[in-house]
Amino acid sequence: MIECSIPNTTFDTIQLAHGGGGKLTQKLISSLFYPYFRNEYLEQEHDSAQILLEGNRIAFTTDSFVVDPIFFPGGNIGDLAINGTVNDLLCSGATPRYLSVGFIIEEGFPIKDLERIVKTMAEAAQQAGVFIVTGDTKVIEKSKGNQIYINTSGIGVIGNKTAISPNNVRPGDVVIVTGKIGEHGMCILSTRNSLEFESEIVSDTASLNDIVNNLLTQLPNSIRVLRDPTRGGLSSTLNEIAQSANVSIEIDEASLPISDGVNAACELLGLDPMYVANEGIMLVFVKQDDAAKALEIIRNSERGEQAQIIGKVIDSDKNIVYQKGVFGNRRIIEMISGEQLPRIC
Amino acid sequence: MIECSIPNTTFDTIQLAHGGGGKLTQKLISSLFYPYFRNEYLEQEHDSAQILLEGNRIAFTTDSFVVDPIFFPGGNIGDLAINGTVNDLLCSGATPRYLSVGFIIEEGFPIKDLERIVKTMAEAAQQAGVFIVTGDTKVIEKSKGNQIYINTSGIGVIGNKTAISPNNVRPGDVVIVTGKIGEHGMCILSTRNSLEFESEIVSDTASLNDIVNNLLTQLPNSIRVLRDPTRGGLSSTLNEIAQSANVSIEIDEASLPISDGVNAACELLGLDPMYVANEGIMLVFVKQDDAAKALEIIRNSERGEQAQIIGKVIDSDKNIVYQKGVFGNRRIIEMISGEQLPRIC
Repeated sequence: MIECSIPNTTFDTIQLAHGGGGKLTQKLISSLFYPYFRNEYLEQEHDSAQILLEGNRIAFTTDSFVVDPIFFPGGNIGDLAINGTVNDLLCSGATPRYLSVGFIIEEGFPIKDLERIVKTMAEAAQQAGVFIVTGDTKVIEKSKGNQIYINTSGIGVIGNKTAISPNNVRPGDVVIVTGKIGEHGMCILSTRNSLEFESEIVSDTASLNDIVNNLLTQLPNSIRVLRDPTRGGLSSTLNEIAQSANVSIEIDEASLPISDGVNAACELLGLDPMYVANEGIMLVFVKQDDAAKALEIIRNSERGEQAQIIGKVIDSDKNIVYQKGVFGNRRIIEMISGEQLPRIC
Repeated sequence: MIECSIPNTTFDTIQLAHGGGGKLTQKLISSLFYPYFRNEYLEQEHDSAQILLEGNRIAFTTDSFVVDPIFFPGGNIGDLAINGTVNDLLCSGATPRYLSVGFIIEEGFPIKDLERIVKTMAEAAQQAGVFIVTGDTKVIEKSKGNQIYINTSGIGVIGNKTAISPNNVRPGDVVIVTGKIGEHGMCILSTRNSLEFESEIVSDTASLNDIVNNLLTQLPNSIRVLRDPTRGGLSSTLNEIAQSANVSIEIDEASLPISDGVNAACELLGLDPMYVANEGIMLVFVKQDDAAKALEIIRNSERGEQAQIIGKVIDSDKNIVYQKGVFGNRRIIEMISGEQLPRIC
């Protein structure tokens, strides 16, 4: 179990956990950003905003990346930034099309490192089929940053028939995860702290176009919601969906795909993989009758080989996420309160 | 004249001037970002990318704001971020519609300051007629930032007949500036250094919808290019346009609208107002025959009362910006090389 270092109190100053993707992030959004910025688009509470442009449904999303370290096994802050924004667009059922890139670079940052980052960004963009069409570079004085921060914003086109939204989730729906959990978070943690485990843990950063394309093409009316469980891990994403859809969710612990490396590292450090960040997997909520077909489609897609059915939606307006343990016990998976791992993305 | 602290050499590390909007910024873009990210949209070299979405012409732009101090006379980093992105969209001849906001906040930042910023962002968005539709918040550890950085990306709709581009500039075209120059840069400089001049210098941050709407409605075929001379001031913007359009430009020093306060401060500090940043004015290139009409339209628009015709485009492929002095002398206005003023936006 995660120790909640921060009780449910009011703060005068920003805490690391305000950026952790859990309860405090939600509170900041609902108590400060929503009241001032209020509009119908913002209140969709989706990974991307769905907007109308000249009659067409467009997805628009933004993400800043402040990961530390900026280079890690399996990727760096650059491809992470491209893949993260592409996946947010995919989660709206959109075809990702155009990306912007905003660099905030610390004075003295090696240009060869910048080139390494830019090169992987270009490769990730090509792989995801998006164009980087506009950008901005700011340089801050030494000690006013941490090497480099990157913002990527993205635009995608949503098919007019696509209806992907947490509001569509219904009791009986099946929850699928498209790959092994916890890889990115444990990779960052072990790299940052120079922890050595038996096998190196590699970030799963990747864009998931193939999985989403195949699902939406072959099961256009059965996919309820897609969501990438990044900051706050599966626990935060599942709790958000339970609240939005006014249902509860039961997860079967034994079915969670976890690599031996992540499992061992989590046990050693006393971390719960349900709270660890991911960057290359998605949670898919699908109509019960089509769950087997969806699982087959995902497993036949690029980066979906390890997909598993991990739980189901239950008819309860308590909006709770339960986890059924391997010995039949059932515990509540709360949204993360504090900051388990700062700056994983 | 500006002292160029950085000669035209190659650097191994990022310098402040790489973010200054002058020669080094251009070099970074042309030697690193363009080769890797290359595509037809990026190469438009405009303030916004013009993209096609389902057959409609859309403008897409991004800007990160790292201004120091974050609060200053006339505004703060929040309304600056909204107005800056709105103006970039306007400069493409687009009607600004949707904005994203990405916050990177330093741990310990007072929530009341964040609220003050968010409030002015909401007001600026309302004034400019745009919706903030999606956002992201990251928190970085203390000492890894400078209070708060904000990225705003924006989407606007370009009328199908609008053709605003530096490539359209022709010899004989007239250059108009819509308001007094140097206010924002000198405001930031004096606030940062606690300099006290006879009169307080106030930032001109504002969105310029009214000027652009009126120009494009009343003179749809005569406006060649619109550009907001932010980082690097008028000198950088004019040089960029001279290069893109393969022309030269002559500016008449006596006609430049400058407040007594900015003039005195520049003289005292040995700064050239042509190199000082602006946030609430635009450069308008217009067909010669319609210059008087354009000036009248701008002066009758909100925030355009101080507009002046300041120069003209001359037929010379040397791509030089000249300034005719008050005594008839003519000097070359080069693009800024070093960093005159770091972090003014």
